[in-house]
Amino acid sequence: MGISSRDAAGFRTSASMTPEVVQGLTALVGESYLLTDVAERALHAYDATIHRFLPDAVVRPANLQQVAAVLRLCQQARVTVVPRGSATGLSGGALPVRGGLVLDLTRINRIPEINVNDLYAVVQAGVTVENFSRAVAEHGLFFPPDPSAARASTIGGGVAENAGGPHAFKYGVFRDYTLGLTAVKMDGTIVHTGGKTVKNVSGYDLTRLLVGSEGTLAVIVEATLRLIAQPKARRTMLMVYDRLDDAAETVSQVIAAGMQPAALEFIDDASIRVVEQFLHLGLPLDAQALLLIEVDGSEGEVSEQTERVQRLCRQHGARSVTVAGSEAEAAQLWKARKSIASAVARIKPSKVAEDATVPRSQIPTMVRRLKEIARTYQVDLVIFGHAGDGNLHPNIMCDERDPHEMERVWQAVAEIFAVTLELGGTLTGEHGVGTMKAPFMAWEHGEEGLAVMRAIKSAWDPDHLLNPGKIFPETAPPWPVALDPWERRIAGKEP
Amino acid sequence: MGISSRDAAGFRTSASMTPEVVQGLTALVGESYLLTDVAERALHAYDATIHRFLPDAVVRPANLQQVAAVLRLCQQARVTVVPRGSATGLSGGALPVRGGLVLDLTRINRIPEINVNDLYAVVQAGVTVENFSRAVAEHGLFFPPDPSAARASTIGGGVAENAGGPHAFKYGVFRDYTLGLTAVKMDGTIVHTGGKTVKNVSGYDLTRLLVGSEGTLAVIVEATLRLIAQPKARRTMLMVYDRLDDAAETVSQVIAAGMQPAALEFIDDASIRVVEQFLHLGLPLDAQALLLIEVDGSEGEVSEQTERVQRLCRQHGARSVTVAGSEAEAAQLWKARKSIASAVARIKPSKVAEDATVPRSQIPTMVRRLKEIARTYQVDLVIFGHAGDGNLHPNIMCDERDPHEMERVWQAVAEIFAVTLELGGTLTGEHGVGTMKAPFMAWEHGEEGLAVMRAIKSAWDPDHLLNPGKIFPETAPPWPVALDPWERRIAGKEP
Repeated sequence: MGISSRDAAGFRTSASMTPEVVQGLTALVGESYLLTDVAERALHAYDATIHRFLPDAVVRPANLQQVAAVLRLCQQARVTVVPRGSATGLSGGALPVRGGLVLDLTRINRIPEINVNDLYAVVQAGVTVENFSRAVAEHGLFFPPDPSAARASTIGGGVAENAGGPHAFKYGVFRDYTLGLTAVKMDGTIVHTGGKTVKNVSGYDLTRLLVGSEGTLAVIVEATLRLIAQPKARRTMLMVYDRLDDAAETVSQVIAAGMQPAALEFIDDASIRVVEQFLHLGLPLDAQALLLIEVDGSEGEVSEQTERVQRLCRQHGARSVTVAGSEAEAAQLWKARKSIASAVARIKPSKVAEDATVPRSQIPTMVRRLKEIARTYQVDLVIFGHAGDGNLHPNIMCDERDPHEMERVWQAVAEIFAVTLELGGTLTGEHGVGTMKAPFMAWEHGEEGLAVMRAIKSAWDPDHLLNPGKIFPETAPPWPVALDPWERRIAGKEP
Repeated sequence: MGISSRDAAGFRTSASMTPEVVQGLTALVGESYLLTDVAERALHAYDATIHRFLPDAVVRPANLQQVAAVLRLCQQARVTVVPRGSATGLSGGALPVRGGLVLDLTRINRIPEINVNDLYAVVQAGVTVENFSRAVAEHGLFFPPDPSAARASTIGGGVAENAGGPHAFKYGVFRDYTLGLTAVKMDGTIVHTGGKTVKNVSGYDLTRLLVGSEGTLAVIVEATLRLIAQPKARRTMLMVYDRLDDAAETVSQVIAAGMQPAALEFIDDASIRVVEQFLHLGLPLDAQALLLIEVDGSEGEVSEQTERVQRLCRQHGARSVTVAGSEAEAAQLWKARKSIASAVARIKPSKVAEDATVPRSQIPTMVRRLKEIARTYQVDLVIFGHAGDGNLHPNIMCDERDPHEMERVWQAVAEIFAVTLELGGTLTGEHGVGTMKAPFMAWEHGEEGLAVMRAIKSAWDPDHLLNPGKIFPETAPPWPVALDPWERRIAGKEP
């Protein structure tokens, strides 16, 4: 599996994981929940990136108090700790890049409260997003964030990475639904942030600081999440475009017209071919782009919006418009979009999934630049994603066993980041920084911004034991290719 | 005016404001913009609370670079700095409680960019919320946050206090619209946070950490704010209730039914009497409560919602329902709500305006408890506010020259906070902590929560020179009445 006690970047595993620490942890959680067997450790060495790092041990605490006790012990013993849900992340957030202890939160998986009157729920970190969404749906309520791995990915991971999904366009991301958190600092202190009210300006917004902090400030154990009413109706449409620019222009026009579809997804020609190759859905192989648009609301609103969206798409060059007549038909249309990631994974053994995000009007430019990058570096690239948010997912299909190909891949990725920032965008719209984007953080935030983030990190975790190697460039594994040409371009010293 | 160089709490003014510092500041901004005259200082000694603290000097920088230079100089000279917009705040955020330098941001008041394609604007701290809203409305865009002082209050203040307003119910608060910030740390470092994209998870969310930080972490000089499309139509309704509980129940039912009015405002009987006494609007003096409900959206949605809301209100005991037939009629209905604060100010010389916020289902209980508190402490209390958010504004009318009355007032306020927390709420929904709620922060956040906030404060401003005396209990002026009975109750040591 290519996993060793020393990781690929040459970081040594934790020297502090002594037999005494193992014994202490075992005493805290019980023998069955402290795993040191290499097979068990290997099962906690991965996430959805192509990297692997073997932890020294895995702990599976049963509750908040055990999490606090585990962290207190590790702080004293100076063992690094990496919180982990289902490890579906795409940026390396759950990878134990320095070895140490993986803190698996999946046993802490209850939903203590669903409050129908006040529209919130209290949910523990290990509950999957899908199970949570289903549980609240049974009460007629709606939790909109829907990361593509929702079936496996956990609420704790969603909060820690500030996950999004297709419905973020209308409904926002995890941040917009997180009212309060129960989290544990590295020293074992339990902190309760926020509360149960939508409006709350009592002191610093620790809740939103923890959302998206990627498990580097505290371990998130429980969340109070805002819920909304289920929309009464929903309609899905698929638009086929002969010209990419027409599809991109449609996206701009939908937004400019003040329409707010529940989802506004983009699929490029390469993605169409990849999906069609495996699923034979009958997608048009000669089209340059598809738009998948979903509208929701009351029956009246949905009819009104469906009309307007269709008209606007046709005005802006859609060759055909399919409106789903039933839930089953809608699911079929969504299948084209939802199958891309898995189809991509079947073309070549490896993939690198990015989520560079640009201001929405830059989408046509971004798509063109991405296609140029694919040609320049000779990489296999598909583009799809949340066009309404300017949040595209360029995915590079590759074979990590081929070092020559991989060098071109990493160069292409660096170029993607450089172009994103040039267009006024951000390195990551919803995947997080993790290890994958850490080397590029200074490009976006400058040394001043990083210095403030470092000071905040130290305020929560002075010894930097919690989830090391994430977010900050100096702690990340070395980037596999030299970044000098891009560094110079970002610094404006070269065109 | 009751202002002295030593403030009411006995804090000394800044000993560091030496002639050299004054000279240095004058050199930075020019003679006209460094004010040391006592009359000028007195004009910067107040906000919308009843407190006054005289600053040692006032500086009015022209741009970002001057702000940075002023802060750098003050950091070196160890002069405390209090950022100030229009000082319309209700929690003491802009009060120079330790003297020092007031940093007036109102000269930094341009709108460098309104981007219609990408739906954002870049706006400087000193622009008033109303002027900003008007400027974007000219482009058909909508900036929803509408604090009641919007005519005077500034964007910088709105961001620093995370201000809300009636339309927060549907549209959210400043936090939900702030994409990026340019701010200056106490050491003069300029920090750019966030960006121009709606989705952004690149590193810690410094943007939302600064939103609501009340000028204690950095001075906010420029904001990139998200805009949305103007709703096509809007309708305002006023419902009259004979029974308070029916009005409260209606609020719950509107939310439970999944309706999302643009505003859902509550006005109690005492507020009705106060407004009627001054404005003679013809409000029903025998009613126990009014609900002001505004719906917006497309024409179709508005008609549909107006119907549903009316039906639901009548089902739940509304004695009468008035639907505004025109913009002018709508403005007339809003007048009842918008005049309460100024009417209250005319009844007695002083007022204490709170914004305790509870989970929405607790509103009936909260209103009953507030009325009990008014009786127990014999204070003149009106209740109104944003019922849809659980965000009520109990206002106590009083005379600050009467020490006996004021002791009862402060006891009543402490009791309000204790009850709010007992009901699962927060000390402040939209006014901020400032000096007014600082003594109570440990009740809500515990020592653990406050310790984390203090560490974050130190990460940004290690010498605690920026806006001292705010948020943290130990730095706030002593609360005028002993808090022991409530402390014991909150700690659970007494019923």
